[in-house]
Amino acid sequence: MNSHSASALIALALAAILTKPAVGQVDPLPSWNEGVTKKAIVEFVGKVTKQGGSDYVPPAERIAAFDNDGTLWCEHPLYVQIVFAVDRVRAFAAKHPEVKDQPLFKAALGGDIQAVLSVSAYDRLQFLATSHAGMTSDEFTTIVEDWLKTARHPRFKRPYTELVYQPMLELLAYLRANQFKTFIVSGGGVEFMRPWTASVYGIPPEQVVGSSVKLKYELKDGQPTLFRLAEINFVDDKAGKPVGIQQSIGRRPIAAFGNSDGDYEMLRWVTSGPGPRFGLIVHHTDAEREYAYDRKANVGRLVRALDEAPERGWLVMDMKRDWNVVFPRTNP
Amino acid sequence: MNSHSASALIALALAAILTKPAVGQVDPLPSWNEGVTKKAIVEFVGKVTKQGGSDYVPPAERIAAFDNDGTLWCEHPLYVQIVFAVDRVRAFAAKHPEVKDQPLFKAALGGDIQAVLSVSAYDRLQFLATSHAGMTSDEFTTIVEDWLKTARHPRFKRPYTELVYQPMLELLAYLRANQFKTFIVSGGGVEFMRPWTASVYGIPPEQVVGSSVKLKYELKDGQPTLFRLAEINFVDDKAGKPVGIQQSIGRRPIAAFGNSDGDYEMLRWVTSGPGPRFGLIVHHTDAEREYAYDRKANVGRLVRALDEAPERGWLVMDMKRDWNVVFPRTNP
Repeated sequence: MNSHSASALIALALAAILTKPAVGQVDPLPSWNEGVTKKAIVEFVGKVTKQGGSDYVPPAERIAAFDNDGTLWCEHPLYVQIVFAVDRVRAFAAKHPEVKDQPLFKAALGGDIQAVLSVSAYDRLQFLATSHAGMTSDEFTTIVEDWLKTARHPRFKRPYTELVYQPMLELLAYLRANQFKTFIVSGGGVEFMRPWTASVYGIPPEQVVGSSVKLKYELKDGQPTLFRLAEINFVDDKAGKPVGIQQSIGRRPIAAFGNSDGDYEMLRWVTSGPGPRFGLIVHHTDAEREYAYDRKANVGRLVRALDEAPERGWLVMDMKRDWNVVFPRTNP
Repeated sequence: MNSHSASALIALALAAILTKPAVGQVDPLPSWNEGVTKKAIVEFVGKVTKQGGSDYVPPAERIAAFDNDGTLWCEHPLYVQIVFAVDRVRAFAAKHPEVKDQPLFKAALGGDIQAVLSVSAYDRLQFLATSHAGMTSDEFTTIVEDWLKTARHPRFKRPYTELVYQPMLELLAYLRANQFKTFIVSGGGVEFMRPWTASVYGIPPEQVVGSSVKLKYELKDGQPTLFRLAEINFVDDKAGKPVGIQQSIGRRPIAAFGNSDGDYEMLRWVTSGPGPRFGLIVHHTDAEREYAYDRKANVGRLVRALDEAPERGWLVMDMKRDWNVVFPRTNP
């Protein structure tokens, strides 16, 4: 081959690289069945990215907010963080016997999960805050990482971080390929999520908004240290979600994804802004491959958001109908 | 020209585009004089971006935290937000005559700025919170934007958003060109900064960490709305800065830039982490082009951070010596 031919080949190769669209000919959402939901997602992304179109949204404003429990990963039969907290309570109570008579500790130590679930999100967070108070943020991170390595889902026998929804992983990647910035906005503890969201979802710690405990900066043996206090800082649930979005992100997302009434206010806040908006509810309809629940669930209850979805223009996805795969076949 | 030659030319052109380094031959920091400070900045960026080097830091972890007042923009003779608040207090007091007897309102209405400055950051923020309580976040944003259009610095007679430091604008851009993510971590109000940081600094709202008031989500005429309450949510100053970093960013930056003792804890937190670290103090030494102040200033006092800089390995920049330009010649 002469040098001209080589150059020509290089030119072709480079041109191919440079002209390849952000989303190529390959289906970016292979785990989504063809149908109204997939069509609506692709149409929304198409119109907000269409330069010169009336619905064009500049990349900087393409903010998408995702609930976590039940929207990105499996929340049944129990919120993963509750399982974690109950596992951890034993370790804490062994060192702090004085908590054994507190109602929630007593219930958790006795295995009465129903009692733990029956209290408010605030009280559950307070319980979690107490059981990890006094440790540093770094220590807590290590505990979460270690726990996730060995904990297994009672039904699927897989690590919880493998029980994330493959179609949602594809959706996150598809949005990012179209210059969306993807955020988690979850009622879960922010320091419980951040250790693994980057590797599992491709969402870096700074794009995770969640509930939190108060932290305190102090020197420990002369070293700057951040300690977790036994006091709730913020509950990022229900009407707290729009507040968490405003405090942490500082602007209104144009798309929101949730699955329960805990996401109702976020969906309303996001979809009532000006310009093109997108709201989607993950409806758990698949008892065989995952779980089927909505109105009567005590984890992830979905009533009001489901009832109002039509009038608010929120898309209600149907897991059984819309997803041809639920969990990744191998560790994502 | 035959098609081979054309292809060869295209190949060369494309190759040139593709192989162009993130930072080219052009000096990325033209407003910084050659010397120890500029050399240290370039060396730090060089080593953390050098693939395979012992100090290499993956792009995701290249987080840089910048104080705002006195580090990115001029804070003398008064914090801009104080000027704003005092201007705004008249409007508020006209509608809420009951505040006229509160000491800080009385002082502000009487033009006694010294009294406003003499209280703690917390009390100043409470004063600001009160004077903007009950309005929505969107309304506050509009007020800030409108105010900045007409307000002028008493000495330089320019809009405050033009009194940003040209060398720091170059530094922000230089870091970003080297895949750093740049954050503001300021004692200033987060909703006071976010309306303009993207256009002025290239820092989007979601990368601004600051002090905040509590917000409340409510329907107003059926529309989801966020209201500002007369209650402080968080004071992002001194020991609050590492806490604000952890709550909002969720990981420790590798570089921090400040100018006063309000940045001391942030500098310690950032520079005491493992691996390569960078801490820089902007020392105001130029009364002619800007201001000269440190130990005795009542705005931006710098004592402890200056004293401990050598033992902590923090670089103390000298405005007079290191910067050949202070403010942008035209609106940045």
